[in-house]
Formats: sequence, C-alpha cells, structure tokens
Amino acid sequence: MPRPRVVIVGGGFAGAFTAKYLRKYAKDSIEIELINAENYFVFQPLLPEVASGTISAPDAVTPLRYMLPGVKFRMAEVTHVDADAKRVHFLQGSRRVPQSVAYDQLVLAVGQKTNLSFAPGLAEHSVCMRNLADAHQLRNKIIRRLEHADVTEDAELKQRLLTFVVGGGGFSGVETIGEVAEMVARTLKFYPNIATAEVRHVLVQRGPRLLEELPERLGLYAQEKLAARGIDIRLNTSIASATGNDVYLDDGTSIPSCLLVTTVGNGPSTFTTGLGINLERGKIPVDANLRAIDRDDTWALGDAALIPLPSEDGEPRFAPPTAQFATREAKCVAKNIVRSLAGEAPEQFDFTPQGSLASIGNYKGVAQIFGLRLSGLIAWMLWRFLYIGMLPGFATRLRVALNWGFDYFLPRSIVQIANQTESATLYRYFAKGDTVSFPGQRVDGFYTVTEGCLESRIPVDGEAEDFVRVIGPGDHWGERSLSNNTTTLGTLTATDNTRVMVLKRRDFNNLRNTFPALDDYFKSINDKIYAPHLRQQKEPTCK
Amino acid sequence: MPRPRVVIVGGGFAGAFTAKYLRKYAKDSIEIELINAENYFVFQPLLPEVASGTISAPDAVTPLRYMLPGVKFRMAEVTHVDADAKRVHFLQGSRRVPQSVAYDQLVLAVGQKTNLSFAPGLAEHSVCMRNLADAHQLRNKIIRRLEHADVTEDAELKQRLLTFVVGGGGFSGVETIGEVAEMVARTLKFYPNIATAEVRHVLVQRGPRLLEELPERLGLYAQEKLAARGIDIRLNTSIASATGNDVYLDDGTSIPSCLLVTTVGNGPSTFTTGLGINLERGKIPVDANLRAIDRDDTWALGDAALIPLPSEDGEPRFAPPTAQFATREAKCVAKNIVRSLAGEAPEQFDFTPQGSLASIGNYKGVAQIFGLRLSGLIAWMLWRFLYIGMLPGFATRLRVALNWGFDYFLPRSIVQIANQTESATLYRYFAKGDTVSFPGQRVDGFYTVTEGCLESRIPVDGEAEDFVRVIGPGDHWGERSLSNNTTTLGTLTATDNTRVMVLKRRDFNNLRNTFPALDDYFKSINDKIYAPHLRQQKEPTCK
Repeated sequence: MPRPRVVIVGGGFAGAFTAKYLRKYAKDSIEIELINAENYFVFQPLLPEVASGTISAPDAVTPLRYMLPGVKFRMAEVTHVDADAKRVHFLQGSRRVPQSVAYDQLVLAVGQKTNLSFAPGLAEHSVCMRNLADAHQLRNKIIRRLEHADVTEDAELKQRLLTFVVGGGGFSGVETIGEVAEMVARTLKFYPNIATAEVRHVLVQRGPRLLEELPERLGLYAQEKLAARGIDIRLNTSIASATGNDVYLDDGTSIPSCLLVTTVGNGPSTFTTGLGINLERGKIPVDANLRAIDRDDTWALGDAALIPLPSEDGEPRFAPPTAQFATREAKCVAKNIVRSLAGEAPEQFDFTPQGSLASIGNYKGVAQIFGLRLSGLIAWMLWRFLYIGMLPGFATRLRVALNWGFDYFLPRSIVQIANQTESATLYRYFAKGDTVSFPGQRVDGFYTVTEGCLESRIPVDGEAEDFVRVIGPGDHWGERSLSNNTTTLGTLTATDNTRVMVLKRRDFNNLRNTFPALDDYFKSINDKIYAPHLRQQKEPTCK
Repeated sequence: MPRPRVVIVGGGFAGAFTAKYLRKYAKDSIEIELINAENYFVFQPLLPEVASGTISAPDAVTPLRYMLPGVKFRMAEVTHVDADAKRVHFLQGSRRVPQSVAYDQLVLAVGQKTNLSFAPGLAEHSVCMRNLADAHQLRNKIIRRLEHADVTEDAELKQRLLTFVVGGGGFSGVETIGEVAEMVARTLKFYPNIATAEVRHVLVQRGPRLLEELPERLGLYAQEKLAARGIDIRLNTSIASATGNDVYLDDGTSIPSCLLVTTVGNGPSTFTTGLGINLERGKIPVDANLRAIDRDDTWALGDAALIPLPSEDGEPRFAPPTAQFATREAKCVAKNIVRSLAGEAPEQFDFTPQGSLASIGNYKGVAQIFGLRLSGLIAWMLWRFLYIGMLPGFATRLRVALNWGFDYFLPRSIVQIANQTESATLYRYFAKGDTVSFPGQRVDGFYTVTEGCLESRIPVDGEAEDFVRVIGPGDHWGERSLSNNTTTLGTLTATDNTRVMVLKRRDFNNLRNTFPALDDYFKSINDKIYAPHLRQQKEPTCK
C-alpha cells in the first residue's frame, strides 16, 4: 500500500519546520515532499546583516536538502492547486515546463508577497528585504552610491547619494538602518572624499514609536541608541511617494535621496489569490486546528494564513506573522496531519512566546525574554547565539561563530559584485534538425530569427495536412502564446543552423502593453499569419 | 606646481600592481588615478574555486581602495581616449553620465574581452570564467542542473543535465573541471535520485596535451589524475558549435549537455580597438620599455599589450598573458614612468619566471618552482599559500586560511542564489516638476509613458522659441539618441506625476536591429515627431 503523500508548498520557517516535525513524528510512514522556488531556507532576520556585510550570504541560509534529510525536495515555482484532482501544479527546470504532483494532504506555507502599491513610485524605486537577492541588491547599491559620491563634483548629487532612507520602524526596518549605518561608518575610511558629516540616515515610521512588537521600554531604548548614532527618526510619518531622486513624506516634506529601503507592505501572492479560497484580510482563513476552512485535506500556516488564537474576552485575536509563531504552528500542523491520518482528533493551536529579540547594529540589541528585559551587547549576543543554535552541525556553527568574531577586527569588505544586469534580450542557437519546441509547452519568450530557418507544424482538426509555417530571418513566434497565455500547439524544428533573439515573457508583455505601436502591429498580423485558410497561400520565406 | 597625473585604466594584476609600484617609487610626487569598472581586484586563478564553493567570493577578491592607499580610485566604465587633448573619457554613476579626466601619462592595462565568435552558439550558450559574476553564474547553473536532475522523470534530459563540458585545457580549463568535478562529487549525497555513475565530465582540448604552459611531465600528471577521477579528456579536439542541448565537436561527434564552460577565445575590447592605435595580433604594440609605439605619454601592459622579450636567436618572442608576467611588467612600467618624468632613460623589460603552479581540485596540484617539479597535496598547498601571501593584512590572511581549513570537514554549500533575473523593462516614477534629463546626457534606454505627462524643450538654432514636444501615455522618447548614439539636445520635465517604462539601451538596439516591424515603425515616425517644421502644428496629447 502506498504511503500517504503530504505536499508542503513553501520553504520558509513555516514550511521547512512542518517538514522537519512531520518527519520526526511520522518517520517513514508518510511521504513528504516540499516544493520551493529556492533550494535554501533563509534565516530572514539576518538579511540586514548580509546587506551590511557583517556576515556572508552562506552564513544566513541553509540548503533545504541539508536541513531536511528524508524529505523529498523539489525546486520549482508553484502555479496553482487543483483541489478536485488533489494535485499541485508547478513550473520546473530552466525551461519552466508545467508539471504536477498528487497529494493526500496539502500544506500551504507560501508566505506573502511585497505589495508596495500603497504609495506611488515605491515599487519602481525601493529595495525590499525579503530574500538574499534583496540583501545583495541593497549592499551593491550602497557601495555604488559611496563610489559615486567619492568622485562626483556635483555637491547636490553628492548629498543625494549619501542620504539613505528606510521605511518602516518594525524589526526589519530598525535592524536594516542599524546595519546600514554601521556599514557606512566603518567603510568611510576608504572613501577619502566623503566626510562623516555628509552621510545622512533617515528612518520613517508610521506609528508613534519604534518596534511596536516589543514592550515600550525596549522600543524607546532602540530609538535612543539609533538617535545617538545620528539617525534621523521620523515618527508618525508615512512615505507618500518616491522617485529615483526624492522620497516624499505625508507631512509635505521631501528627502533628496536615491536609496530607499521599504520594509512594510505585504499582500497575498497570485498563487494564494488563485487558490479558490475566500481570503480574509488577504490571508487564508483556517480553523483552530490550522485546517483551511472547507478543505479537509488542506492546512495553512505562517504569514499566508489567518490563524485564530484563543480569546478570553471574545475579541478575535490572530497569530502575528513572526518566525517564532511560524515554527510553533509548524509543530501543530505536523501533529494534526499525523493524527488525522490515524483517525484521531486534531489539536488546537495556542502559543504565548517566551521572548523577543532585535539587533540594532553596532553590537547592540534589545530583548525581552522570560519576563526579563535586556539591552546592549548582552541582548545582541543572545540574538547571535539563538541563530547559531539553529544551524545544523557543530562544524557549521563553529565556522559561523568564528567569522562573526573576525568581523570585530577586520575591515568591512566593500566589494561591489556587479549586478550582472542580465539583459532581457538573449540569443539562442539551434543546430539544423533540432526540435525547438513540442506541443503543450509554455513559451518563455518572444522569438525573432536573426539567421537561419525554422519550420512550425500545427495539426488542424479534421484535416489530413498540418498547418506549416516557415519562419526565416526577421520572422518571429511566441507572441500569440504569450498574449493569450496558452501553450504551444505544434512542433517547431530548425531546418538550418539558426540563431534567434529572445525577449523574455515578462518583458514582452510589459512592452506590448505599454507601447501602442507594438500592440497594433501584433493585432494586425495575427490574422495574416495564423488564420488557417491562409496556409495554402503561405510561401516559404527562407532560402 | 601641480603634480603630474598618471591615469591607469584597468584594475587587474597589470593595472593594480602598476598603481602599487608607482606609489612605492614616486611616493606623493605623482598623482595616481586608477579607473576600473569594478571596485575590486580579482585573483582570477581562484575563480574556479568560487564557482565550486571551496571559497566564498569575498575571499577571492580585494577591494582596490583597500589594496591601494594613496591612489585615487574611480569606479567607471571607460569609453575612449582623446590622445590630442590627453583626456580619458568614461561613463560614471548609475545614470552613466559621460565625464573625462586629464592625464600627463596614461597606462593601458585593460586586458582582453572574451571573443567566442570562433564557433557558432558559444556566445549564446557557454559560461566563461573571467569575473566574479561568471563564477557565480557557473555555480548557480550547476546547482540548478542537479536540482532539476534529481526530480525529472525524463531519462534523456537527466543525462543531459548531468553532463558538464569544459572547453580548453590550459590553467583555467583544468582548474575549472577539477573544481566542478569535486563539487558535484561532494554534493551528490544531498541528491538521493542521482547516482555517481550518472554524472559525466568532459574536458575538450585543442592541443595534444593539457597545461601546455607547463613542462610535459606536469601536464601528463594532471591528465592522469583527472582521468583517474573519471573525467573524459578529449585531446586534439575542438568545439565546433554548441546549442542549449548539445556540444558539437570537430571530430563529428556531439555531447548531449546543457552546461558548457569555455575558457578559451580572447580578443580586444571595443575600447582597445577604438584607441586609434594599429593593433598587432589584437593587442597594443609596445617597445622594449613598454611604451606604446608612437605615443610618448602612453604605456601598455598585461593581456592587452604585445610585449617583445629579448631574443637570442632573432626569432620574435612575446610575453605570455599570465599574472606573473603582468605583475613584473607593472613594476617595469612604474619605474619607467618615474624615470621618464625625471628625464632619465627607461629600462627594458625582461623576465624569466621562477615557477608555475596549477590546482587540479580535490586537494591536488602541479608545480614547477625554482627548477623543482612538484605534484599532489604539496603543490596544492604551495598554490594556496601563494595566494594568502598576496592578501593585505594579517587578520584577512588568518580568516581566509581558517575558512579554507573548514572546507575539509564541512559539507559543501549547495545554496543556489536566484539569478534575480532582473527584467530588462524597468519602471520609473517622476513627480510633477522633476527634471528628467538635461541637454548633453547619454540616454540609457527607450522610454514609454504609462501614465502622466512630460514636456521636452529643445532649443532651435536661430529661432527664439524652443521646439516643444508634449509626451503623454503611449508616447515614447530615447529612440533617436539610442539609434544615432547621440546625447540629449533638450530638457525633459515631468508636468504631472508620471510613470514610465524603460527598455535598456542594449535591449532596445537588439530588438530594433532584429525585429523589422519595430525598425519600420521608428523610421516612419522619425520625421513626424522631430522634423522642426512640424513644431507649430504639434498639439499637446496630454490632458
């Protein structure tokens, strides 16, 4: 008899720990598969330290395969769930071929996506702090600004380049500005033309104080320490809009700056909105056992789920979106899956955290733990030890601890690893006879032939002969599938050695939607190329 | 009296060491400026180890500012040299504004660019090993292939995903395949569905043996060791072409593989070809003192220069493009600049290397040093110590040495940092009243307005009124400057809050050159929009 298969979507705290606990409770009696777009687990609270170069990227992440022995791991991008057929669909491999896997129980731990639509210009001009790529991007931008400020002769531009703005005064925002300020301060000695007084850091917080997740005293301590380091803190203030040159605030003032980090603004991903579940507050509603409402075989947890907590006064309470809660929820989901497969009643979720910690940079932290309030170096060390304890294996822990120790007495690296801004237009080469695509594939871009020749054969219902189209230099394909979001109908073969230019899916759609001449052109040619009655008249255009 | 200014273009071994020696010999009597596109010096021989994760990126590079105290560093992309005006021109900052700096003496240490045009498909489908971004790209591709191979059910695809091909059997090729094979072998335990026997490594070498730079015995030792580790070595074979699925060899066979690393194929950059110097063998010819032929104030060295060596038999000999030679050439150029500024006669360049080293992965190396031939662990350790000795500062050396030590007993990281495939179509937001561009700027992309409105004002010779163009949703700008490679003529101002889509310069040009409909469109509108006689008739199209 096949073992029941539990598919977990998402590899953050919620998903990874569900897999870990399931493996612990169910041993080999359950087949566990975890699907995630990246092959590693990010310790998200450390991202600001990656951005500042305090720790290197490999120290802030753990490969999921290494963390989860006995769990089948699949690196893929989930697209949707077919709840009736009990299958999860995803795009796999570099060609993003659509595939699916069946589940008996489904765990949704998909987190949230950044949604910056609350203020114009934020999506275009701010850096977030969600994943490693964000941390690298922030790091590169800071160094680029310093490099530029050191050589420019334009005083106004220099001031703008040296002003760093962070939006959001929660954990992520406070840690980010603390780390950025420390990084800049420590690297200035390499920039002889920048004076310390020319650098400006601004923290913009909507609420009346920082770190509203923590007791007031700790929030005030963090605020005092940051202010003493020269950080300009704007409380009760929101970002109204941003351009590449200025950040506009809701009090009518603006800050000339070309580096804005936004740590607020979340919403459901298109995967979540496409689940067919009625979301509440943008999240998946679950019952007290963490089971999705109306779906017996589906569980949801973490930032993506709206999780009710027991309430004494009848006022509804929900679990906050923190790593601490996510790991506890994971334990509860794992237990409840094992129980429900054994025909037992599930447990209710309840949890009261024992403590909270935040780092504010410069070897200072704030903490509340088992009722004690701590601040300064001791809180910062606690925060570091907590992370080291989560690393798998003694040797890894030792290496990370030593590297952190070195940070005390080594100059901070200012290496700016080029953004390798991959261009949207790639080129591909096919040898004569190569099959370029089969029926049923998702087209990944808009293709134009630069040299060579291809042949497309599409079967026509009720006709013996295929619709044949010869595609030569200057001809193109893919626009129809991209615009209608369909898969390929026919087989495309290179009839000569052929070089093509590819404009990627997203870029093609952006361009077509924005630039009317292009849209007009594609509308006008649609009938000419594809209308089947034209196929007899179609003349080959290649040699 | 102002100090003479020496401008050095390029921050590799040749450029960085010229700056270092100049500073040493001339102290403060010369102003030294070094211009490089990246702000760090890469120890290029370590790139294969970065790709394999043996060392992390920060350990393979040193920030130029840290390495070169007292030298003015400028991160910029050089475009050309005006030899008459004695100025170097470059693009600076994220907006790539054209600027220039004057020199008294110019040092060209610009290296070479990869040129893969010798075989079709190589430019499209192979990874190089030139800089940190290449090493990261290779690393990510290998891990992506392993992730995909572990979950695919297509046996043929699996074989293709698990076949790794390296082109070139010199230092770089041998080190790369050695490191890649070691990395894959050490990480397979995390991929339960991949058997060791399924992985295949192929090294393709045009010449009759490996490491032709070293004595035959060492080349044969490397070959034997690599073959013993299961690497398939194809001597006297060249790559004829490559697609995303197959590597075609000149013996008529092909290897199904979707990961090809090419370590051969070099040529001059467009900067070098644009110098106005008659290149020989694609390089800048210099005299025995490393001074460029016919240019008294210009010196060239490193891979970009064709450097004659003293010859006993009258047969012309040239310096090989190695790091060892480049650092010696740097010393000679620095001395000669100091001498020539003091009115003394320059020295001739001559150098006979004391030894050569190559790592072949798996803690093995081959070396010839002071006449001794070494191989195995001892050669590998020598190779590592050599690098550690080049690092600046005791603490950095200790950290790097310890991290290398840890590599023995720690599992290899398999973190695949997402390629953050930045889309080519970006969006920018401008607030009402913002000046978007001034006259004389280089346009960085093709802009289309998605919402809002802008006004362009271009002064017209001999007329009192400017040419005014109102640019609204669906309208665009930038195409003329991009296609003609000119700078902006007028001032562009946002007359409302405005959001625009940007297709970057290179992508726009690729698209326009490949896709005839787009080119036709731009030709047809050129007169309509820009012909000055139309300016009175132009009606505003925005609200």
